[in-house]
Amino acid sequence: MITVALAKGALLKDSVERFIKAGLDFSAVLEENNRQLMVPSLCGRARALLVRNGDVPVYVAYGQAQLGVVGYDVLTEHQMPVSHLVDLGFGGCHMSVAVKSSSGYSTASDLPPHCRVASKFTNSARAFFDELDLPVELVHLTGSVELGPLTGMAEAIVDLVATGRTLRENGLIEIDQLFTSTARLIGHPLSLRLDSGKINDIVEAVRTNKKLHNSGT
Amino acid sequence: MITVALAKGALLKDSVERFIKAGLDFSAVLEENNRQLMVPSLCGRARALLVRNGDVPVYVAYGQAQLGVVGYDVLTEHQMPVSHLVDLGFGGCHMSVAVKSSSGYSTASDLPPHCRVASKFTNSARAFFDELDLPVELVHLTGSVELGPLTGMAEAIVDLVATGRTLRENGLIEIDQLFTSTARLIGHPLSLRLDSGKINDIVEAVRTNKKLHNSGT
Repeated sequence: MITVALAKGALLKDSVERFIKAGLDFSAVLEENNRQLMVPSLCGRARALLVRNGDVPVYVAYGQAQLGVVGYDVLTEHQMPVSHLVDLGFGGCHMSVAVKSSSGYSTASDLPPHCRVASKFTNSARAFFDELDLPVELVHLTGSVELGPLTGMAEAIVDLVATGRTLRENGLIEIDQLFTSTARLIGHPLSLRLDSGKINDIVEAVRTNKKLHNSGT
Repeated sequence: MITVALAKGALLKDSVERFIKAGLDFSAVLEENNRQLMVPSLCGRARALLVRNGDVPVYVAYGQAQLGVVGYDVLTEHQMPVSHLVDLGFGGCHMSVAVKSSSGYSTASDLPPHCRVASKFTNSARAFFDELDLPVELVHLTGSVELGPLTGMAEAIVDLVATGRTLRENGLIEIDQLFTSTARLIGHPLSLRLDSGKINDIVEAVRTNKKLHNSGT
C-alpha cells in the first residue's frame, strides 16, 4: 500500500484537494473530529499519515511514506535525503527578515553586526547572513517569533510571512526576503527507483492535476 | 517591571493559579479569546509572556523574563543557563521508553542494538541509552511520536507520559522510565543576583504558596 505523509495545518486542505483530483481521496483527514493519524483513502489503495510539518520529510526519508507534501521552507531548513518531485504552487509565502517598524532599518545589511536575530529557521537564517557576510547571534525559538523584537531580545526575526497580518499586528515590517516557499510533493528515493509504476502514476496525476488512470493500482 | 514567561498548554492553568496565590494575577491569559502574548498582571506590577514550552528557558536565559515556569523535561533537554528555583509539584509526568505491546520487550535493555528510537527529546534519550551502553539510532520527530512504532519506522519511542492514554490508544506499553518531570520555577541568574528584593519576594511567595507581602513592590 502506498503511504502519503501530509502536513497538518495550513497546507492540509489544498494537499487533500490535489490528491482527490489525482484519484486518491483522503478527505477523512479534514473531518473536524478526526483523531486518527493514519487514514486510508476512500478507495483503500493508499493511506495518509497525518504528521507535523517538520516530520513529513523524516517519514519520507526513512521510507515509511513513499510520498509526502510539505513546504519548501521545511525542506531547505532540514535537508533530509528526499526527492523533490513537484512544485504544487499552493501555500505560497516568503521567508523574510522583519524588524520593528520604528527601527529605521530598511534592508538586512543595515542590521548592526553581532545583533540578535530570532528564528524557528536558524539554518536558513545562518546561510543567509553568512552569504551577506554579516555576523549575527541567532536565537532559536519554536513559536511566536514576533515576541523577539517586542521584548527587546532580538533586533530582527527571520520567519515565514504569508499575509503579513502577524507582522502588522505586532508593529513589525519586512525588510528582506530569503526565498519564496510553496508546497512540494516529495518522494522516497529508493521507493521511486524500485517503483513498478504505481507511485509514478500518482506523481504524474498530481503533477498534471489529472485523475489517475485505473491501471490496476 | 517583572516579566514572567509562562508555557502555553498543559502547565498554564496551574501556573496562573500558583501566581494568583502569590499575589500576581495573570488570569487574563486563560481567557478563551485572548490573542495577546504579553499580558499585564491585574495589579500592573508585572507582566506574563505567553510562549511555547521550549521557549520559556530561552526568554529567561536572555533576561527578557526574570522568572519562568516550565517542565523539568524541557530544562533537561535544552540545558539553558537558568537558575532552577522551585519544584512546583504540578504537571507530573514521566519521560518513558515505550514499545508496541506485541513486541515482547520488557525493559529498555531488551531493545536490539542499533534499533531506531523516535523522540522529541533526543538529547535526553541519547544520555539514557549512552548510560545503558546500548547504541541506538535516534530519529528526531516534532510531534505524534507514537506513529514511529506504528508505521514501523522505530522499534521504540522516548516520550512524556502523563495519563498513559495516548500509549494505550495506540497499542504501546511503557517499559522503562528516564525520569519524573514536574513544573519548575526558573530565574535569570543575573537578575536574581542584582535583585533589590522584588523578585525574591515573588519567588518566596511562590515557594511557600502564600501571598506576597506588600513591601512597596
